[in-house]
Amino acid sequence: MTSPAQHRTDHLFSPAEHTAMRASLEAAALGVRGANPVVGAALLDANGRILHTGHHSGAGTLHAETDVLRKARETGTDLTDATMVITLEPCNHTGRTGPCTRAILDAGIKRVIFALHDGTEAARGGGQFLADRGVSVRHGLMAAQAADLNDRWFTAQAQNRPFVTLKIAQSLDGRVAAPDGTSQWITGPPAREAGHEIRARVDAILVGGGTARTDDPTLTARDAQGNPLSHQPLRAVMSRTPVAHDARVRRGVIASGDGAETTDGRFVWLNTHDPVEALSRLRALGAAHVLVEGGPTLSAAFLAADLVDELWFYQAPLILGDGKPSLASQHTQTLADAARWRSDPVAGPPVRTLGSDVAWHLRPAAVSASK
Amino acid sequence: MTSPAQHRTDHLFSPAEHTAMRASLEAAALGVRGANPVVGAALLDANGRILHTGHHSGAGTLHAETDVLRKARETGTDLTDATMVITLEPCNHTGRTGPCTRAILDAGIKRVIFALHDGTEAARGGGQFLADRGVSVRHGLMAAQAADLNDRWFTAQAQNRPFVTLKIAQSLDGRVAAPDGTSQWITGPPAREAGHEIRARVDAILVGGGTARTDDPTLTARDAQGNPLSHQPLRAVMSRTPVAHDARVRRGVIASGDGAETTDGRFVWLNTHDPVEALSRLRALGAAHVLVEGGPTLSAAFLAADLVDELWFYQAPLILGDGKPSLASQHTQTLADAARWRSDPVAGPPVRTLGSDVAWHLRPAAVSASK
Repeated sequence: MTSPAQHRTDHLFSPAEHTAMRASLEAAALGVRGANPVVGAALLDANGRILHTGHHSGAGTLHAETDVLRKARETGTDLTDATMVITLEPCNHTGRTGPCTRAILDAGIKRVIFALHDGTEAARGGGQFLADRGVSVRHGLMAAQAADLNDRWFTAQAQNRPFVTLKIAQSLDGRVAAPDGTSQWITGPPAREAGHEIRARVDAILVGGGTARTDDPTLTARDAQGNPLSHQPLRAVMSRTPVAHDARVRRGVIASGDGAETTDGRFVWLNTHDPVEALSRLRALGAAHVLVEGGPTLSAAFLAADLVDELWFYQAPLILGDGKPSLASQHTQTLADAARWRSDPVAGPPVRTLGSDVAWHLRPAAVSASK
Repeated sequence: MTSPAQHRTDHLFSPAEHTAMRASLEAAALGVRGANPVVGAALLDANGRILHTGHHSGAGTLHAETDVLRKARETGTDLTDATMVITLEPCNHTGRTGPCTRAILDAGIKRVIFALHDGTEAARGGGQFLADRGVSVRHGLMAAQAADLNDRWFTAQAQNRPFVTLKIAQSLDGRVAAPDGTSQWITGPPAREAGHEIRARVDAILVGGGTARTDDPTLTARDAQGNPLSHQPLRAVMSRTPVAHDARVRRGVIASGDGAETTDGRFVWLNTHDPVEALSRLRALGAAHVLVEGGPTLSAAFLAADLVDELWFYQAPLILGDGKPSLASQHTQTLADAARWRSDPVAGPPVRTLGSDVAWHLRPAAVSASK
């Protein structure tokens, strides 16, 4: 996965700098997948000791650089002669948080090492900005590992589309509904709660027309008590057939008063069968992170188009033996053509138990780690 | 799960005896499923301290009682005033190992507590045998927990049939073969090796006629290098159609010399579609533990007849989307009818990773813990 060029770059850095970058990569993996890449940062003192590590926890939260500087500030750590070691080039723009380059200058950091350039329009140039202001800036340390950590996020950026998470909740034998259509609930409360946590951090939830008709879901993000969470994603239905006037997905979290139908205006009907077009529409509506929640036809369409960047598979120890398979045809003919997935180290082990259920956290098996 | 009668019994035992029985139950769970029940034993001294614990590791190995006595002997532990606390009544017959009652008397143990009576023909009467020889024998401590640990083993005994393990290796979406029939290999080497370890401890492996024809398996137990292990189970094919003369399953592990076909005589064709009849035939042939290895029709038939006592589900992070589902119809109509399974604490956590694959170890969700 590491190219010769990257090997050449790596040897220019000290063992302590390697150790700090490894710590930054591990910190990055504590983040969450979504609109932003996962990023980690470490502060290294002149004796090669790691002072603090920090990471980015998703859109709207501190960047890794400001997170690690916050820790240093709160503990009164002396940052004279400290080096900041970051998995990605510090941003140079004012997004939901201020630019990291400014925070680095304000903290008096004189040396910065980052693994990868951030090529996105809004963020690029952070390294140059710091260098122009007298900071020693080096990059390229463990770039292959840093690229691998966010490979599918870079893919989504390059394709100018939202980052896509697919969530499937199925039985042990891979079914999402019994023959009579019943599917509530295959998984137990802890797995369903984990699903709502994902809903609460995406910009849009997308389901197919079949799911909208059969399950009539609200697609709202709720807590364990069923109360709506503060952030509610856009609710999107992708279908050539219009969504029923009284479908719950239209109404959102606003209770209808005295018989009159109300809506929170956070619903959209996408009159298409093309995942690329649907993502384009959702991006235009401001969605940087889309959660696909099925059904089998929609999930299969996104998988077949290689448009799934992150996969959550919730599985219950339940055997149906009949009913709807979790995925419609991928037109696979032979085993060698099957799509292979690999574990995603971001925020946890590849599989974990949630009550009696199991959650898999996967990402596409990349052919190459370079972007 | 605990009946009022059992609660009444439990309070007759001291806190130290409870602690020792819990240790015995935990030790029992280190065993393996199969021809014998899992059993644990602890030695408790007069001060309420646990001296040693032991467990049974499957047919042909030491019983829990002799295992814990071996540890005491090897470490020169003084057993004067020791109490042996066992999850099951000590056996009174000479099987592959000598009777445990004799070992207990020989060790000079004066007090024995066991959770459950062993009602099997060959073993029963161990408690009475010891009491008749001056040992203080009490029973009924944590009997519900001890019964739960072996509930399906007792079921198999009561039905006078072998203990049945079902093994399935499938993709993430529940498929065991691609449309063109390819299935080698869905899971990786560590999962396949684990499968061979199960083969090596069963008395018979059973597959359906379709699997015998399509995969032409040898059904031998082999090590990671592909060499046959010392114990080879009986190889059984259940089918209304005769098994092809040149099928590999007929030949076993003996290499055929100079073109002549040879066999190790460990093959049987069961001309039936009835799982009960197949198990009866295998029991008559000496099998106390049968491993069902599919295909989907055979697996479904055993599941539908509630004849699966232990389930191993190996799953690879691979998406097929097409091909053969791991299980044929169970005639399930609605979600409430789905068979629920629960984790089996015996020898490990409910799920564990094996390379990039996941292994589930499950047992049927019992309605009642009493036998």
